[in-house]
Amino acid sequence: MTNIDAAMALFDERCEAFLDDLKTFLRFQTISAQPEHKTDMQTCAEWIRDQLASAGLKAEVLPTAGHPAVFADSGPTVRNANAPTILCYGHYDVQPVGDESLWKSPPFEPTLRDGNLFARGSADNKGQCMTHLAAVRSWYATNHPLPVRVKFLIEGEEEIGSPHLPAILEEHRQRLACDYVLISDTSKHDDETPALTRSTRGLVYKHITIDGPARDLHSGQYGGMVANPANTLAKIIASLHDDAHRVTIPGFYDEVLPVTDDLRQELAEAGTTDADVLAATGSPATAGEAGFSTAERNTVRPTLDVNGMVSGYTGEGGATIIPARASAKISMRLAANQDPAKISQAFDDAVRRVCPSTVQLTITTEATCAAYTAPADSPAVQVAIHALTEAYSRPAVVKREGATLPILPLFKEILGADSLMLGFAAPDCNLHSPNEFFGLDDFKKGVRCIIRFLGYMGPS
Amino acid sequence: MTNIDAAMALFDERCEAFLDDLKTFLRFQTISAQPEHKTDMQTCAEWIRDQLASAGLKAEVLPTAGHPAVFADSGPTVRNANAPTILCYGHYDVQPVGDESLWKSPPFEPTLRDGNLFARGSADNKGQCMTHLAAVRSWYATNHPLPVRVKFLIEGEEEIGSPHLPAILEEHRQRLACDYVLISDTSKHDDETPALTRSTRGLVYKHITIDGPARDLHSGQYGGMVANPANTLAKIIASLHDDAHRVTIPGFYDEVLPVTDDLRQELAEAGTTDADVLAATGSPATAGEAGFSTAERNTVRPTLDVNGMVSGYTGEGGATIIPARASAKISMRLAANQDPAKISQAFDDAVRRVCPSTVQLTITTEATCAAYTAPADSPAVQVAIHALTEAYSRPAVVKREGATLPILPLFKEILGADSLMLGFAAPDCNLHSPNEFFGLDDFKKGVRCIIRFLGYMGPS
Repeated sequence: MTNIDAAMALFDERCEAFLDDLKTFLRFQTISAQPEHKTDMQTCAEWIRDQLASAGLKAEVLPTAGHPAVFADSGPTVRNANAPTILCYGHYDVQPVGDESLWKSPPFEPTLRDGNLFARGSADNKGQCMTHLAAVRSWYATNHPLPVRVKFLIEGEEEIGSPHLPAILEEHRQRLACDYVLISDTSKHDDETPALTRSTRGLVYKHITIDGPARDLHSGQYGGMVANPANTLAKIIASLHDDAHRVTIPGFYDEVLPVTDDLRQELAEAGTTDADVLAATGSPATAGEAGFSTAERNTVRPTLDVNGMVSGYTGEGGATIIPARASAKISMRLAANQDPAKISQAFDDAVRRVCPSTVQLTITTEATCAAYTAPADSPAVQVAIHALTEAYSRPAVVKREGATLPILPLFKEILGADSLMLGFAAPDCNLHSPNEFFGLDDFKKGVRCIIRFLGYMGPS
Repeated sequence: MTNIDAAMALFDERCEAFLDDLKTFLRFQTISAQPEHKTDMQTCAEWIRDQLASAGLKAEVLPTAGHPAVFADSGPTVRNANAPTILCYGHYDVQPVGDESLWKSPPFEPTLRDGNLFARGSADNKGQCMTHLAAVRSWYATNHPLPVRVKFLIEGEEEIGSPHLPAILEEHRQRLACDYVLISDTSKHDDETPALTRSTRGLVYKHITIDGPARDLHSGQYGGMVANPANTLAKIIASLHDDAHRVTIPGFYDEVLPVTDDLRQELAEAGTTDADVLAATGSPATAGEAGFSTAERNTVRPTLDVNGMVSGYTGEGGATIIPARASAKISMRLAANQDPAKISQAFDDAVRRVCPSTVQLTITTEATCAAYTAPADSPAVQVAIHALTEAYSRPAVVKREGATLPILPLFKEILGADSLMLGFAAPDCNLHSPNEFFGLDDFKKGVRCIIRFLGYMGPS
């Protein structure tokens, strides 16, 4: 029996206990965006530290000006002096639950249905984060030395743009030193096919507030006299796209790299089809920037979306008012090579130019992050693809992601390390939506993949 | 002592008791738009019936398919066979309270501050409605015959567009027969100056719902792939005005009467100034359709306003989603001569034309109503102006109202009666907003005005 086989057998033996740990993990209401969950965040961070320490690593909670992170280190492995150091990154914070009435089971009470574990954070990211921990625990249980040196960094602010991660990386640069960052916060290619994600998009997230009258006004008494903040907000939002659904912000596309024939072919081969998108989203049609395929628009082209907006009376029936205020949350996904700071400024300038002086405009920047692309020729990428392929008994796809992982450009910039993104979540796992889930089978395959990956990275 | 003086003296004697009745009236949570207040509506209607019956009228609750109305009749007066019949109209339903945290005292606990009674419905319309009842009770207390025959119709659906009033008027056409309808649901010209309102605008009220994906989507995972309902809603709303703030709906202005030089002069003399509007609303500037004054835009020109809109995540922090749905409440105020049915259809057509097929659009019509203008040469109008002028010791202004009273065209059409609108509320009484109030002094002057009006209309 090889060491890998031994670790695999021990995982099979202890799988139920790992799942119980995952359920405990999921019960912490770690919504980083909502201040009332501050205590939940701290308690959860301490629980993770205790999990890592009981596994055999040296673990501690790293306080930040916001929510704490957890760091752990196995120490140098005695097995192989040339073995690389792998930093397992994850996050224990989750998105807000949204309209709770749409959840079939309570978001913070993990519930098993049809082989899937339903809970907020099950896929993003607690369940996937737990695959790393379970793999490392299984290796420790063999009583052989670890094949590689393993470190963990599990933060609590990923869903709000990781505002304190740069400070953590700067402050603990030496302790966090690693050859590769291992991240499982993406999804499979489809239900059956595993994927390694090579690129992610950047993000600029804005809040716009339009203030008009000092209070809601009767729309008959004052209609026609003063500007309506809701109509004004609609005008501003509408001005940000043209009829071909191109973003109209001056300079927005200036630094976007052209879609080469090779890239177009790669995306056509690996990318999701329109039929897949319609089936997964329930949308009546695909839509977006003219001249690009659905897969291209989602991965190598930037986009601009309203994430939320509210104004005036939104209850049952009708109230005839001119709202005092209207506000919107607007995010842009950036393509490779776009500078978030330039795009942020260009957005502000464009909005200010359109907004009339008959209302008061406030713009705040909630998050900015660059896109990231991993080098295609890294040997570790090949090892990861091999481990994925074995775990799923099906060739892994190398794909591009439309979402944002703010940590990727940070790890590269501060630690000098490239990131390996091995995702185990289903593409339709209701990420950021009600009824988020993580498949039990994917949990198990994920752990087995990581056991193999660690083993292959540090051969004896 | 004349009969009018006798009624006045009796009012002064009983004023505190009438105010206590008004406070009881204001405690009923009669929000007609919210189904959970159904029982409050019925209980309040029965309370009004008992008030009218104890005054000496024959009173009953009239059930409808929605909220009930209350009808009462004094019977023919023995004093003067030629005395006209006056139908006192009012409504006991109120607007929703909106954001309750903005109220300085609870909306349904009437609270006296600085001589003003604060409560939802204090001005619109319970307090003003109570001036009619107190005036009639004062006349009854004199033990002289009433100077005119008095009827009451107090409905419970004015704030939701009076959907069952046409059925009530049709069904009880004979019993409701009258020479004039007396209505106090408008405001004074300014704090010191009483006003008779000669015209009101019409209304078309719409709900628009845009459905995209079957659930909220992760804006990274799907951004660029499908249409965003919030962006689409903004585009539709923005398309309804041009840069000169004219409504772009084809045919919208076709039947609007031109603003004559006389009308322009009347509005310039009687109308509110821009400085008044800025002081009353706290808006940074006046704004609206190019080519018309602020007073013109509010009274004799039609307008289109978003009254509320909502989509996606609107809580604290940010969620990166493509919302499944976006919806808006949009109302248009119509000028004299515009046909609500035509405008309603034109709105739907315009919205459908702009809305792309990549989302699903639903439009519902919540209310339609024509504008109304009372004849300037009616003798009753002159009597009303005289009574107002005496009550306030200051010449009453004849003014035009930007708001809508759906009952006015109905009374004209079904009962053949013109309406006299004597309003006692302050122009800045926070109508439909938090901290709505009615001045105690205006309550008293209002009652005295109505006592005089009834006396003058039926001289012995």
